Amino acid sequence: MNNTKRFQDIIAHCKEYGFIFPSSEIYDGLSAVYDYGQFGAQLKKNIKDHWWRWMTQLHENIVGIDAAIFMHPTTWKASGHVDNFNDPMIDNKDSKKRYRVDTLIEDFAEQLVDEGKEAEAQQLLQQMNELLKLNDLAGLKKLIEQYKICCPVSGTCNWTEVRQFNLMFSTQLGSVNEEATEIYLRPETAQGIFVNFLNVQKTGRLKIPFGIAQIGKAFRNEIVARQFIFRMREFEQMEMQFFCRPGTELEWYAYWKEQRMQWHQSLGIPADKLRYHDHEKLAHYANAAVDIEYAFPMGYKEVEGIHSRTDYDLRRHQEFSGKKMQYFDPEINKSYIPYVVETSVGLDRTVLMVISEAYAEEEVPTAQEGKTDTRTVLRLAPHLAPIKLAVLPLVKKDGLPDIARKIMHDCMPAFHCFYEEKDTIGRRYRRQDAIGTPFCVTVDYQTKEDETVTIRYRDTMQQERIPIRAIRDKVRQAIQ
Amino acid sequence: MNNTKRFQDIIAHCKEYGFIFPSSEIYDGLSAVYDYGQFGAQLKKNIKDHWWRWMTQLHENIVGIDAAIFMHPTTWKASGHVDNFNDPMIDNKDSKKRYRVDTLIEDFAEQLVDEGKEAEAQQLLQQMNELLKLNDLAGLKKLIEQYKICCPVSGTCNWTEVRQFNLMFSTQLGSVNEEATEIYLRPETAQGIFVNFLNVQKTGRLKIPFGIAQIGKAFRNEIVARQFIFRMREFEQMEMQFFCRPGTELEWYAYWKEQRMQWHQSLGIPADKLRYHDHEKLAHYANAAVDIEYAFPMGYKEVEGIHSRTDYDLRRHQEFSGKKMQYFDPEINKSYIPYVVETSVGLDRTVLMVISEAYAEEEVPTAQEGKTDTRTVLRLAPHLAPIKLAVLPLVKKDGLPDIARKIMHDCMPAFHCFYEEKDTIGRRYRRQDAIGTPFCVTVDYQTKEDETVTIRYRDTMQQERIPIRAIRDKVRQAIQ
Repeated sequence: MNNTKRFQDIIAHCKEYGFIFPSSEIYDGLSAVYDYGQFGAQLKKNIKDHWWRWMTQLHENIVGIDAAIFMHPTTWKASGHVDNFNDPMIDNKDSKKRYRVDTLIEDFAEQLVDEGKEAEAQQLLQQMNELLKLNDLAGLKKLIEQYKICCPVSGTCNWTEVRQFNLMFSTQLGSVNEEATEIYLRPETAQGIFVNFLNVQKTGRLKIPFGIAQIGKAFRNEIVARQFIFRMREFEQMEMQFFCRPGTELEWYAYWKEQRMQWHQSLGIPADKLRYHDHEKLAHYANAAVDIEYAFPMGYKEVEGIHSRTDYDLRRHQEFSGKKMQYFDPEINKSYIPYVVETSVGLDRTVLMVISEAYAEEEVPTAQEGKTDTRTVLRLAPHLAPIKLAVLPLVKKDGLPDIARKIMHDCMPAFHCFYEEKDTIGRRYRRQDAIGTPFCVTVDYQTKEDETVTIRYRDTMQQERIPIRAIRDKVRQAIQ
Repeated sequence: MNNTKRFQDIIAHCKEYGFIFPSSEIYDGLSAVYDYGQFGAQLKKNIKDHWWRWMTQLHENIVGIDAAIFMHPTTWKASGHVDNFNDPMIDNKDSKKRYRVDTLIEDFAEQLVDEGKEAEAQQLLQQMNELLKLNDLAGLKKLIEQYKICCPVSGTCNWTEVRQFNLMFSTQLGSVNEEATEIYLRPETAQGIFVNFLNVQKTGRLKIPFGIAQIGKAFRNEIVARQFIFRMREFEQMEMQFFCRPGTELEWYAYWKEQRMQWHQSLGIPADKLRYHDHEKLAHYANAAVDIEYAFPMGYKEVEGIHSRTDYDLRRHQEFSGKKMQYFDPEINKSYIPYVVETSVGLDRTVLMVISEAYAEEEVPTAQEGKTDTRTVLRLAPHLAPIKLAVLPLVKKDGLPDIARKIMHDCMPAFHCFYEEKDTIGRRYRRQDAIGTPFCVTVDYQTKEDETVTIRYRDTMQQERIPIRAIRDKVRQAIQ
């Protein structure tokens, strides 16, 4: 199966089985926005809870906060987003379509490759990267003209100038008159941690080194948002800022690089599908930066970034707010602005990674000799699966549903269960496979005699009989 | 202690102990927006998880979803928010201040009461309510003039006309040109459920009656946002829409009214601090509506609303989208638009309710005979407390911290623990009281001899010795 097809299959599966729907689909959707359906929402919550527990509950020196999406607008001046959070864009005057310059050029380079002109494509991309680095907008325009790059819609090269486009969404807070304030929807959750640094450190009496973690929505008005939930205009981040003594940051950077890689593996992602990608060019505030990438169907892509951000953010907030963003370190009897190591993971990307890794289509034997059938299964780690146990009466009569319901009600307080009595057992198993349920138990006539059920394992499709009283603990152990 | 003072004390306590901070406080805050600090975020999460588990995991026929904040703008035309989600407002031409008309008049009526003119105040409010019902903006203006209600800032009665002000925040999706779309930040989460009704019902093969639950942020550009986190511009809702056969909705309404009251009690709120408040005037789409109110320090106020919404929302989406929002009911062999019973609780209000109920200042005896001291304690239900167990070595030497840390690491995977070794034990107990930690264990010299610790109970301040190996299960049982 080729990778584009695999990716399309995963997207279709997500929709068909209630994981992810296009937003407002009855109104034909909203570009680059998605809704999590009944199983997707639970999978996402399980990943979120796993991160929160790992970062806050299991680390004595990390606390979690929950800052608002709305922040004082000066925050984004201090952070540099008002001035620098831009993408260069260009409009085609005939089609009225707007493009991100880098995407337009990259797509054209791909065409060159398809035509066998690899060297030319390489040269074009290199030139583009240099101009982007220099922020040379006129140069980018010239490059587009030089290569005669046309609009895919109108087919013409009738372009406007290249302009910067800020990616923050803005809105008006307060009533629409002189008093209204233009505010932004946060483009990252990190700043909510920085502006609360003093409050959290002081009220929590925290000693360096310590971390502040947060999960929350962020918004970026991407010109070209694509690849399903990989790049959305509304998305969720799980970020942690680790505050440490200047000079120790690279040790902590190494520590968190390792820790975060372990975390991704704890989601059931094999080590050989994950890799580090060091940033070649560092942002001006960083002294080290690495991405953790996963081998998505569309290639290796960033899931998490780990950045040694120095004291840049706190120092900027100190400048813009006039408040001393300092910490008094009793061990060395000195005040300083702490250095920060950030770990920032995209929650939606993590969901996509987990589903991509779990999704499998397999040939399995059927009752008919020599014939096989295709089953689609999500091999989710049991602790992440939206439903842990399906309880299925073999038939809808003879008291079997009552026994099944009793099992269900015994297990429901401990974990998410699912009851289904319609269709053949085989079909019901397949539907549970498709949503990643690790265990199914079937109540049959023997159950009435000896209080045992058939338990069926998703991955091996093996079945065995176990006593009813053993079900709950068996599942509970597997999901811990 | 009077109630205004009590409320102020609670607000101060929330800030001092890391529960709730004004948003972007280093920039002098953002009006009516708050951030949850380290203990507030965990308390809020515990309430959220309790609701989610109660509604989805423990109800076989309720599933949870997680729809985006951004929705197709037609959603809000269908829901009626574009046309009707308004507050009448008036501007004072001298002070340039804008007021919500009802708030301006209500504040004036309060003044009348203070001056002993109760009858006049009563009459004013009655007139106002009638005009509001009729949406008579000119009449409201006349009423303000008739009573000579002045601007509290300028002191003049130099008013503009009364105008409607829509409470939705809007922003531009896509690039700012002809193609950009004006979208809204959702003012309620409910519509995210309605637009996904077909997708969830079909992919989940759900049979009526069933519910769809959701927790998420909503935004309202309140003119007068006040009372701390009670009315914020950015807030979080926990909503469930229960879809049922037309004609059965009032039975389900009664069921959910009862169920939701039980839920509030499960947070540790005593029954006599909660009450139902039936809506006198029903919204045009509702055939029954009730609030659950809690006795806040500032009086009884709504925490949750339960509404029988008929088929209004689905019918409107059917009209506006052209998609059939129907369900085929195999039991009666008929298709229909389901009726809906909604339960909608404000998460931030619930946090405020829980803290208000838990907050206590008590006189407690001191070591000095006859002398007492004041302790501030949050009597949170143990399952909601941000920290479940504090582990405290009596002194910072002689190996006691090592034993304490060992206990801590043994318990951390099971629940949130807190380690502290600074200050006297008495002070450390008080700090844990202030954040609502139900259990403290102290490691002392006797621990080294017999492997026991002193466990101290927050509410009674009683202490007893228990073996180290009994700690984990003791706490675990109490928080279930």
